[in-house]
Amino acid sequence: MRIAALGPEGTFSHELAVKISGGSGVLLLPTIKRVFDEAESGRSLGLVPVENSDAGGVGETLDGLMDTGCRIIAEYYMQIRHNLASDGVTAGGCRVIYAHPQSHAQCSRFIEDLGIPVIHTASNADSAQLALKNSGSCAVTSLSAAKISGLEIISPDIQNSENNITRFVLISSDRGEPSGENYGVPEMAFTSGRKKCSIIVDPEIDRPGLLYSILGVFAGENINLTKIESRPSRRGIGSYVFFIDFEAECVEKLISSLKRIAKVKELGCYGREEV
Amino acid sequence: MRIAALGPEGTFSHELAVKISGGSGVLLLPTIKRVFDEAESGRSLGLVPVENSDAGGVGETLDGLMDTGCRIIAEYYMQIRHNLASDGVTAGGCRVIYAHPQSHAQCSRFIEDLGIPVIHTASNADSAQLALKNSGSCAVTSLSAAKISGLEIISPDIQNSENNITRFVLISSDRGEPSGENYGVPEMAFTSGRKKCSIIVDPEIDRPGLLYSILGVFAGENINLTKIESRPSRRGIGSYVFFIDFEAECVEKLISSLKRIAKVKELGCYGREEV
Repeated sequence: MRIAALGPEGTFSHELAVKISGGSGVLLLPTIKRVFDEAESGRSLGLVPVENSDAGGVGETLDGLMDTGCRIIAEYYMQIRHNLASDGVTAGGCRVIYAHPQSHAQCSRFIEDLGIPVIHTASNADSAQLALKNSGSCAVTSLSAAKISGLEIISPDIQNSENNITRFVLISSDRGEPSGENYGVPEMAFTSGRKKCSIIVDPEIDRPGLLYSILGVFAGENINLTKIESRPSRRGIGSYVFFIDFEAECVEKLISSLKRIAKVKELGCYGREEV
Repeated sequence: MRIAALGPEGTFSHELAVKISGGSGVLLLPTIKRVFDEAESGRSLGLVPVENSDAGGVGETLDGLMDTGCRIIAEYYMQIRHNLASDGVTAGGCRVIYAHPQSHAQCSRFIEDLGIPVIHTASNADSAQLALKNSGSCAVTSLSAAKISGLEIISPDIQNSENNITRFVLISSDRGEPSGENYGVPEMAFTSGRKKCSIIVDPEIDRPGLLYSILGVFAGENINLTKIESRPSRRGIGSYVFFIDFEAECVEKLISSLKRIAKVKELGCYGREEV
């Protein structure tokens, strides 16, 4: 099955989708929301960034997991390297920098030191295209987007952290057991087994100590949380839902205990795939 | 004391800063990071958005609270209304929409229905300016930014939620008791007293059940958490710190109990100010 991902050509999502698609094809879409819609329709799998080690959760992806019926069937970790690129301008000659807001956040120290105005764009690939079109400008972009646009790298590895990692998840509308054959992608291994599970817990009504009770269910089962992230419930300010990732072999008992105290949406159990 | 806020003229931050400055003056700066730097220098107070009921936490502000010595001295809640504005183009005639990423997220349904490409900008005011300069384009913007640029509102109230609220905090490098006189702004009431406190808890080393132990300290003292939000610790993927807001009259015992199990940064106790 083909993989839908955020385009245009040259985004980190595109690069990863090509690596894991194994010849099944990649469909590039303009927004993360459109990737979720495509995956939910069952026509494609979807590949979306869910968090970055520097900039945090990706709101559009968390909203997609909350709002659609898509489930997570695998996760991937990708080392992120950003570069300053231009069409013949030196770093000192840039009068304006094009950058995606997440890339800006991940390269904030380098950009702040330059002291040049930054214009936000919709993707790293758009940043590269804009730097190509507008003379005297530079782009924060990936190596592959710079290559595609024919830009020259003028400062490599400008991200704040040497250890900048983005976690991606592969999503599907399918409710069956994830396997390469099920998705018509035998190259995809799904070998690492079901190790991590993701859920959204919605307390619906807030009461003191509720989150403590929720975490008590995990502690009681000796289950390790690998992540907890709050997001607005959209019922008003101060009302939240919680995205929780945890490691467990068997989730049935945990989920039924949780459901006694809060609304639970299961996002799937899945393994980490290497690329 | 004057108040530094994210500019240019016409941002929601600017609108609120003018309301609360009481004639002490407003300094508009191009990024939230610069607002933190200005407040940390002691030359101004800073006003920054910290979370929105639809789009969630504002990463740059959370990073500023983590990285600088600024403390929170008051909080404000502002009703957010977004509009589609243009220089004589109808909604159907827009070929491109300029929008700040947070505004885009908060108006995603309306924008998705239009099906027009979106270009991200650095502020609502920039969106309005770009719509003015580029014919056939529209902007998602505030009423005040539309007015300043001379744009016409073609669709009012396009935000996803009728109840869209942004919470702002006023920050200062001062460690003393917040009072209007201390800051040379007698118009600022600081009347609502110290009701809410904010801290950052850094577990430093992850171990199963650690967050549960942290929340247990609050439960043991019968203290109500009003918010918990995780952010990357920047030590690598899967490592987090927690921003916690809670309501308490006396925090000394709580903080010393917490410090036995994790690193704690106190961001201040403060009241909610009405505007």
